Amino acid sequence: MLPQPIRRLVQQLTHLPGVGDKTAQRFALHLATSDPSLAQELGKALSTLREAIGPCPRCGNLAERMEADPRGWCDICRDSRRDSSLLCVVGRIQDLLSIERSGAIRGHYFVLGRLLSPLEGVGAEELPLAALERRIRDPDEPVREVLVATPPSVDGEATALLLAEQLRPLGVRVTRIASGIPHGGDLEFADPVTIGRAIQGRRGLE
Amino acid sequence: MLPQPIRRLVQQLTHLPGVGDKTAQRFALHLATSDPSLAQELGKALSTLREAIGPCPRCGNLAERMEADPRGWCDICRDSRRDSSLLCVVGRIQDLLSIERSGAIRGHYFVLGRLLSPLEGVGAEELPLAALERRIRDPDEPVREVLVATPPSVDGEATALLLAEQLRPLGVRVTRIASGIPHGGDLEFADPVTIGRAIQGRRGLE
Repeated sequence: MLPQPIRRLVQQLTHLPGVGDKTAQRFALHLATSDPSLAQELGKALSTLREAIGPCPRCGNLAERMEADPRGWCDICRDSRRDSSLLCVVGRIQDLLSIERSGAIRGHYFVLGRLLSPLEGVGAEELPLAALERRIRDPDEPVREVLVATPPSVDGEATALLLAEQLRPLGVRVTRIASGIPHGGDLEFADPVTIGRAIQGRRGLE
Repeated sequence: MLPQPIRRLVQQLTHLPGVGDKTAQRFALHLATSDPSLAQELGKALSTLREAIGPCPRCGNLAERMEADPRGWCDICRDSRRDSSLLCVVGRIQDLLSIERSGAIRGHYFVLGRLLSPLEGVGAEELPLAALERRIRDPDEPVREVLVATPPSVDGEATALLLAEQLRPLGVRVTRIASGIPHGGDLEFADPVTIGRAIQGRRGLE
């Protein structure tokens, strides 16, 4: 019923996260009937995206590609006002962005790209541990503390334990983000594991 | 915090229907980090979309562009098994697709592209009434009945009344889709206007 180029576009759009057939068709019809510059400009931006953008070779954050640069490509690695001795390890770029939005630390990052997952068969050899060690040992920007900010899930905890073990010989302090009741959250509706963690992680009131 | 090409992409993606900043950022990060062929292929499809696709010059439905052809470009206009004497007039291509999915008629269509809207200042001169008249008078495929399938909203009803008046001199039968309680709907939760229409439009039980 829809012409072939539209059907192909719908099919491609369903690869976007959270987009099913109905939403993809809505997007495609909009792109096919609204101001032609929208499809044109978006097409141009997407065609050049992966040449313009790549993972920062130092931390894995998204960055504009540039010539080899020992300081890395991304705005965070290149920001000299940041504390490069505090290295926050995250699973995904999205998590890095959330932490940045919170403004809670002004250190450097290291993006693993994936978590250890015994259930899905992702082992330690698939994590960029050698690159992480290189970053920690960097003589120009030595790391004092590694804050492991993987999520408090089964895979995130397994990854945190692995990192603690692997990094112990390097003589850095390895810390872990707290897990507990979220701000504004209700104890009544918190799950038992979260309550258990909030109690285990209790602190003295000074 | 995000590199410039990503920020630009996020901004462009917010022009898709129902996509806000958060969803656009989610799409952009996915496109920047998943298999590069996704962004490439989607970019190519969008760059060529508007050259490949255009409104059928006969009915306004989406169609692959082709050389001037009196039968029109779209699959529906070119389908000789359809009843070309029944012309269903809709506001948008989306409405045409819904009617086709229902399989309730096998006629031809005419897409107005917009509805009369006294509140938004859209007058009769902005509707393609001359093209609609040309279609109805086509000596090769004369129209016997015009079924006005604009939505039962203020603008849709105003458009239907305008069409009834304009088409009267052409000697075609002008009909209107029924408005009432939808299939599986509950009278308890139906709004008073819908109930009023369901009662006004009552039919004898034969």
